[in-house]
Amino acid sequence: MPSLRGRDMISITDFTQEEIEYILDKTDEIRKLSIERSDLLKGKVMAILFFEPSTRTRISFETAMKRLGGETVDMSEPKRASIEKGENLTDTVRVIDNYVDVIVIRHPLEGSARLAAEIAENPVINGGSGAEEHPTQALLDLYTIRREKERINGLTIAFVGDLKYSRTVHSLSVALANYNVKLYFISPPILKMRREILEYVSNKVSVEEVNDLNDVVEEVDVLYVTRIQKERFSDISDYMKVKGSYKITLDHVKKMREDAIIMHPLPRVDEIDYAVDQTPQAKYFKQVYYGLLVRMSLLALILGAVE
Amino acid sequence: MPSLRGRDMISITDFTQEEIEYILDKTDEIRKLSIERSDLLKGKVMAILFFEPSTRTRISFETAMKRLGGETVDMSEPKRASIEKGENLTDTVRVIDNYVDVIVIRHPLEGSARLAAEIAENPVINGGSGAEEHPTQALLDLYTIRREKERINGLTIAFVGDLKYSRTVHSLSVALANYNVKLYFISPPILKMRREILEYVSNKVSVEEVNDLNDVVEEVDVLYVTRIQKERFSDISDYMKVKGSYKITLDHVKKMREDAIIMHPLPRVDEIDYAVDQTPQAKYFKQVYYGLLVRMSLLALILGAVE
Amino acid sequence: MPSLRGRDMISITDFTQEEIEYILDKTDEIRKLSIERSDLLKGKVMAILFFEPSTRTRISFETAMKRLGGETVDMSEPKRASIEKGENLTDTVRVIDNYVDVIVIRHPLEGSARLAAEIAENPVINGGSGAEEHPTQALLDLYTIRREKERINGLTIAFVGDLKYSRTVHSLSVALANYNVKLYFISPPILKMRREILEYVSNKVSVEEVNDLNDVVEEVDVLYVTRIQKERFSDISDYMKVKGSYKITLDHVKKMREDAIIMHPLPRVDEIDYAVDQTPQAKYFKQVYYGLLVRMSLLALILGAVE
Repeated sequence: MPSLRGRDMISITDFTQEEIEYILDKTDEIRKLSIERSDLLKGKVMAILFFEPSTRTRISFETAMKRLGGETVDMSEPKRASIEKGENLTDTVRVIDNYVDVIVIRHPLEGSARLAAEIAENPVINGGSGAEEHPTQALLDLYTIRREKERINGLTIAFVGDLKYSRTVHSLSVALANYNVKLYFISPPILKMRREILEYVSNKVSVEEVNDLNDVVEEVDVLYVTRIQKERFSDISDYMKVKGSYKITLDHVKKMREDAIIMHPLPRVDEIDYAVDQTPQAKYFKQVYYGLLVRMSLLALILGAVE
Repeated sequence: MPSLRGRDMISITDFTQEEIEYILDKTDEIRKLSIERSDLLKGKVMAILFFEPSTRTRISFETAMKRLGGETVDMSEPKRASIEKGENLTDTVRVIDNYVDVIVIRHPLEGSARLAAEIAENPVINGGSGAEEHPTQALLDLYTIRREKERINGLTIAFVGDLKYSRTVHSLSVALANYNVKLYFISPPILKMRREILEYVSNKVSVEEVNDLNDVVEEVDVLYVTRIQKERFSDISDYMKVKGSYKITLDHVKKMREDAIIMHPLPRVDEIDYAVDQTPQAKYFKQVYYGLLVRMSLLALILGAVE
Repeated sequence: MPSLRGRDMISITDFTQEEIEYILDKTDEIRKLSIERSDLLKGKVMAILFFEPSTRTRISFETAMKRLGGETVDMSEPKRASIEKGENLTDTVRVIDNYVDVIVIRHPLEGSARLAAEIAENPVINGGSGAEEHPTQALLDLYTIRREKERINGLTIAFVGDLKYSRTVHSLSVALANYNVKLYFISPPILKMRREILEYVSNKVSVEEVNDLNDVVEEVDVLYVTRIQKERFSDISDYMKVKGSYKITLDHVKKMREDAIIMHPLPRVDEIDYAVDQTPQAKYFKQVYYGLLVRMSLLALILGAVE
């Protein structure tokens, strides 16, 4: 396998299946490694270039870099997002590329992260772009499943909630299509999984679209919940109608397999009842921690600190 | 005395008198220690989680951490303060708890810092909450008195200004009640010290409420000045009336003991005349520096880098 | 030559010609030095105190400090700029002076940086003040010329664009007046070089004001381009009229000497055609990188890490 040093990560499909497995393997070791050699990324600087607010993803990357002895600079300016046009992104990336060793970018427009990667000589990591891509979230989701279920192949995984606009779900579905899994897509009709992703995934693994969570809840190994945003509905009464049906409660958990796990990319609003947090199935806060480890591992590999 | 490692500090009363003295003792050594071993907190990360703006407290904690070789990540978002409700604080704390080793929180609502401490597995330090608590400010105030007066017991200490809303004054008064001191509370009638704190303190030490600063200025060892905020007055003419009477000028300083000290938590607006800055009694900028040392010492103890 | 340790840099004229050359010499070595000894500024903290937004200058200073093993704290608050009056700057500087080892300040009012330097015991670096001074930009511009042209003496240098309000042009012109150079100032009539700077520079070197870039483009060794801001024109049609005449295109580049260089302080809007970026004359992105090196060198010298 070629070294990952200097590689961009714009889409989860930028890395081969073998490379993804390799990152996940390295993630198992990174915590120990970072304690033994806390200066793995000493002297390296990462730029945060976020044109969309995202405290959680930003902090996860920042902490990952700092835990490995590296440094970060924050170029994010919420106001710039609105005034900066595409052509100026080019100059911004060229400037920051002179200062740092790796750039993490988040941009509301599809293709912006790819454009940045083409301009920058240093590696660029996509921290979320448009509605399509959030590759490091997909990596950490895979890692969470592998850690908690000890395998990915053979699992039945259900996505529930907003499958149309969630880039988390899109990136992860594409990544899972390389495994031997069964997928359920559970959503209100107006928030169904995008046609193009459904087709891509269906060609590779068994997929079923489901209306009612209760039909499959007993069967799933992994229940991946996403937020249903009010703003997606033109009629608020439509929202109120579907909202309740996609909220995970203790009743659902009781029907689930004992060894099933519940995941969520966070932040949650009210799509998982707080009472569920105390159940052994709830893994969404552990998922946060695994995200830190995965980003540490990815940064160490891309910056060539580990092979 | 048990180790302070892993301890929360939400109220100054969370620590015994012996523990407080121990932190102050360690503060005497921390500067030297930080120069000898600048990596005391290497590999440790502190989160700043401020739901109220406070540049000064934030920078003091950040610098303290960085001077000891640690790192910080800033979760503060001024806008979130208004939109986030109590229930979301829980999730925010759980997430950040997965990333860092210690959390410093500031929140406008009483009890929020305590709630955060209950949720987080890592230690939580209160950077100011509601009108009640600002425990690290109380610690640094105690340290300033001890450094500049070489003792706390036996001193006469006057608080002047807004005694009703100043959390600094509240935390420090409670802390001083454990010493053998005489306290004067000097304020306009509508900004008098809160009843519950007055009662708590009166039970332990000699306390007198005074209207006119001139009645006691010659006697005090420590004059602790706080800002009187215009917004506290419903009638602006009431504000204009009292404002002048509580402003410290050279005239006051001339009447003071030569070895008395003037303190102020800063920022000041105009409650201390700028001419006073040049007098030997003015210690409010040294107080800032002592604050840095106290926070270094507290962080080193709580994170177990020193015992 | 006396050591630069502890020195303020408010104006480019604060340093002698010999000292400026010394900083530029050290800049040649700093990259190698920073790789060999990445902890040159370990334990040192720099404050960023910006009362005007400036991502680029801020990030350049931050990265310079971090690449040398130092740390930064950010005191900038865009909102404060409007509410803070002169007298409060004094207190702000006194407070931050207690926390850090060096302060970088940017302020819209002339004289504010100088005031800060007088108050602070630690060295203060001007990150841009009013329309007059941007001394580290002048340093990096000198360094870019020296690196790319291998000398400064004997060169013909043309400034084009807004020469009235650009502090970059003002600081650099003053710095170049100490060399044996020929200067052209090319601008629309209402944006001509300020009288006082023109007089200062004319007394020392050959200066000519020119209306049309085409008259001198074939002759120049260095073409320094600045942005013409729409807001400077009371009548938008005046702006539209002059705008095109001062935009650098491939046609200009074709007429230029092969070894001429084009510089720009960035950000650019549309005063240099994007097609020019690919020509060997375009040096404005390299200029960004040289800026990082110059600031590393300046910080290392002022903080006494190198002599």
